[in-house]
Amino acid sequence: MKITKDLYQGSLALLTDFYQLTMAYAYWKSGKAEQEAVFNLFFRKHPFHGGFTIAAGLDYIVDYCKNFQFSEEDLSYLATMKGKGDQVLFESGFLDYLREMKFSCDIDAVEEGTVVFPNSPLVRVKGPLIQCQLLETPLLNIINFQTLIATKAARINLAAQGEPVLEFGLRRAQGIDGGLAASRAAYIGGCTSTSNVMAGKLFGIPVSGTHAHSWIMSFETEMEAFEAYADAFPDQSIFLVDTYDTVNGIKNAIKVGNALRSKGKEMVGIRIDSGDLAYFSNVAREMLDEAGFPEAKIVASNDLDESIITSLKGQEASINVWGVGTKLVTAFDQPALGGVYKLSAIKDKNGTWVPKIKLSQQSIKINIPGLHTVKRFFSKGKAVADMIYLESQELDPQAALIIDPNDPTKRKRMMPAYYQEEILLKPIFTKGKLIYKLPTINQIRDRVQDQLNFLDKTHKRLVNPHLYPIGLEENLHQLRMDLVLKAKQIDNGNESEK
Amino acid sequence: MKITKDLYQGSLALLTDFYQLTMAYAYWKSGKAEQEAVFNLFFRKHPFHGGFTIAAGLDYIVDYCKNFQFSEEDLSYLATMKGKGDQVLFESGFLDYLREMKFSCDIDAVEEGTVVFPNSPLVRVKGPLIQCQLLETPLLNIINFQTLIATKAARINLAAQGEPVLEFGLRRAQGIDGGLAASRAAYIGGCTSTSNVMAGKLFGIPVSGTHAHSWIMSFETEMEAFEAYADAFPDQSIFLVDTYDTVNGIKNAIKVGNALRSKGKEMVGIRIDSGDLAYFSNVAREMLDEAGFPEAKIVASNDLDESIITSLKGQEASINVWGVGTKLVTAFDQPALGGVYKLSAIKDKNGTWVPKIKLSQQSIKINIPGLHTVKRFFSKGKAVADMIYLESQELDPQAALIIDPNDPTKRKRMMPAYYQEEILLKPIFTKGKLIYKLPTINQIRDRVQDQLNFLDKTHKRLVNPHLYPIGLEENLHQLRMDLVLKAKQIDNGNESEK
Repeated sequence: MKITKDLYQGSLALLTDFYQLTMAYAYWKSGKAEQEAVFNLFFRKHPFHGGFTIAAGLDYIVDYCKNFQFSEEDLSYLATMKGKGDQVLFESGFLDYLREMKFSCDIDAVEEGTVVFPNSPLVRVKGPLIQCQLLETPLLNIINFQTLIATKAARINLAAQGEPVLEFGLRRAQGIDGGLAASRAAYIGGCTSTSNVMAGKLFGIPVSGTHAHSWIMSFETEMEAFEAYADAFPDQSIFLVDTYDTVNGIKNAIKVGNALRSKGKEMVGIRIDSGDLAYFSNVAREMLDEAGFPEAKIVASNDLDESIITSLKGQEASINVWGVGTKLVTAFDQPALGGVYKLSAIKDKNGTWVPKIKLSQQSIKINIPGLHTVKRFFSKGKAVADMIYLESQELDPQAALIIDPNDPTKRKRMMPAYYQEEILLKPIFTKGKLIYKLPTINQIRDRVQDQLNFLDKTHKRLVNPHLYPIGLEENLHQLRMDLVLKAKQIDNGNESEK
Repeated sequence: MKITKDLYQGSLALLTDFYQLTMAYAYWKSGKAEQEAVFNLFFRKHPFHGGFTIAAGLDYIVDYCKNFQFSEEDLSYLATMKGKGDQVLFESGFLDYLREMKFSCDIDAVEEGTVVFPNSPLVRVKGPLIQCQLLETPLLNIINFQTLIATKAARINLAAQGEPVLEFGLRRAQGIDGGLAASRAAYIGGCTSTSNVMAGKLFGIPVSGTHAHSWIMSFETEMEAFEAYADAFPDQSIFLVDTYDTVNGIKNAIKVGNALRSKGKEMVGIRIDSGDLAYFSNVAREMLDEAGFPEAKIVASNDLDESIITSLKGQEASINVWGVGTKLVTAFDQPALGGVYKLSAIKDKNGTWVPKIKLSQQSIKINIPGLHTVKRFFSKGKAVADMIYLESQELDPQAALIIDPNDPTKRKRMMPAYYQEEILLKPIFTKGKLIYKLPTINQIRDRVQDQLNFLDKTHKRLVNPHLYPIGLEENLHQLRMDLVLKAKQIDNGNESEK
């Protein structure tokens, strides 16, 4: 999928915060534009009070970076910008610089569909400060949202215990691409199909759908409506039974099902979109079974999410297929991931990487410094811990101590010899050149299931999950502590701090 | 703004739910494709437990309808769709029909920026059943989201009591267009500017922004960073003071402010993005005033919304400018409006409009039948009630009784002679031809403020607002009751209903 070419018209270079451009200008003015820097994109807490997160959006990022180029139209727009006293804001030399700029960063990222944990880099960008900065907003926009929705979809699919989950959220999605990107991420996260035809066309996702209440209402009676639909789609009929009265609707569906059968066709099932789904699905199951339709599916929809599905399962509702919309595509209970993108190191004039730290009143907001990456340890087919460490660090092959970044008393000693390991950050671009072969959307979707299989089931519990161990390698932990203390000492000349 | 041309590539005809296409096919098969129908887009409850909603998105709708046309690429995609046994799903005659189809509906809608209330049509589509049906999903997608965000923005701006609110949510927005459309709607709702440069370019919205923590961290000291920024933007410097230590940051900003002043320039202000905003804004105000910068602005940001702004105001925080991101652009506490689009009448073979009703287990979900519109009564410059009525109904000029659709014991007798009145649904398209002159985005934004001025302040209260009277004209109420009872009688042959 090429977002820039297939979906949007050409340049998305201005899809960024204005302060990225004012900073870009000021970097350029102060001769720092090409100073090499490293930024990391990560999140601080799993969404939905969960125990895992599914990384998604890399395909979009690759397309965005490959086509990163200011168009003449973009530059003309920037040239019109005025500051105080109607002065031109950006010197023309800066606009020339943007015109000539070629994307030349190294990007390392976890593959789409990977299970990830807090504080661990999902994307690492190394390159000229000005480019790293301009990429911040689009990278966050894309990764934050698709990761959020892929995670929500995975949770909903866990709740459905292998039964099909159909996504049909477009009408309530946050804008056009809020729908398209959500359909993509929902499919990656495990949904069976989308209702969004454009997403089907753009991403090659299966689409599904039957009819709405308006179909029924456009006929004089429900029976006529069912019959006409069965005529048009004799092999694909799922009848929506709750326009007037659910029980009567099921009776009508059975009548049309019998008529179909007399022509050698079989109705697929019924759909219930309102009322008490536990009650009516069981009524429907009983009626369908009695009438000789034990194979007919019961599709249910109406503001479903993982907790309502879990509750319906607990009540032994007779639902076979789950239709999920609003709560999935908007991630209703937490509609933003809160991922951030932080400078972690910068190269000084001597070519030495200087690790960087940002303090905060909230310790959880202190970033992880240096040029770091992350490794996952596996034992007997299960992931057992993730370790964030400096790429330049020589690691003791016998022992690795990982320390929780939010609670340094939580430590775990790993003996690498006993484990398989995998470095999660993979090279995607080197000096602006794409060196990664993008998987297909079905490969990404399969990867999610493989990754979830690596996780112990206690981490996948939807409520109060067991926390997966992820920590800083001890030298990185020490570097971070030293930098924090040094920064507080240097800059904190004030005792009035609250 | 032309979403189809400027933002997206050509055809958005497939931006719809698949069931719209299966129904379209089945309408075509059963000879009902061009039967004339009326659908209404409305919502059932104000978002955010509020007392008003701001309609937005019409500009997108107009563009969508003007350019509504299946492309050859769309049709080729539909031609690949298979049903059971690998049979082609859609006959080629249907695809030919879609190819030749020209948008020919009448669309009436409330103007963008109008204050609207539950159950009242925001958009009314009258035309061939097949076209009405295909438009359902894109209309809902666009209106639901932009209305939600314009309403959220209006609430946040009410909380800010006239102080500037800057929108900078792109990084947390739900996808690319989730950001762009949100910036547009936020501006309409009253925000001063957006950080989203592409939204600035596409919609002509003012953009704003200064620098991030990474700017500060890329220098050896905060002072150097402030100085370099002041060199680049001597007239536009707002210094972000909380990278290391807020109080020390304010001191450094004052130093650079003094240096600027010695060159005849003036710093604009400071920004605080973390910590206790009430506390630090007051500390900052005191320090800035003492240092001779009483005009310096204090910009605050960090997960702000209308309730936090109200709380900070209550605590007498010294904040002059409010930066709002995630909570605004995702409408965090209620990320979907829940608007629906329902068939309300269909023309029978004799050319008579037949009003239509859908029953539901939940009475609030029973639609309003017939070809209806809505009128607002004004008295002494204030809106006093909205009345939904059948367009064909002759109204008594002396008295109009309106009845609450959810509680028929709530009635209000209006005496039209005492009021000014305005019909809210305006003709936008007639037989597919645009007859409405689209206002500019600034006109829409001004309209929102005018509309809010029409409302009594008790309806604008952010918590537990006084409910504005909106009801069905008595004949429409009676028609609805009759249709409900008739539908229950005809179709409900079952006493097992729960």
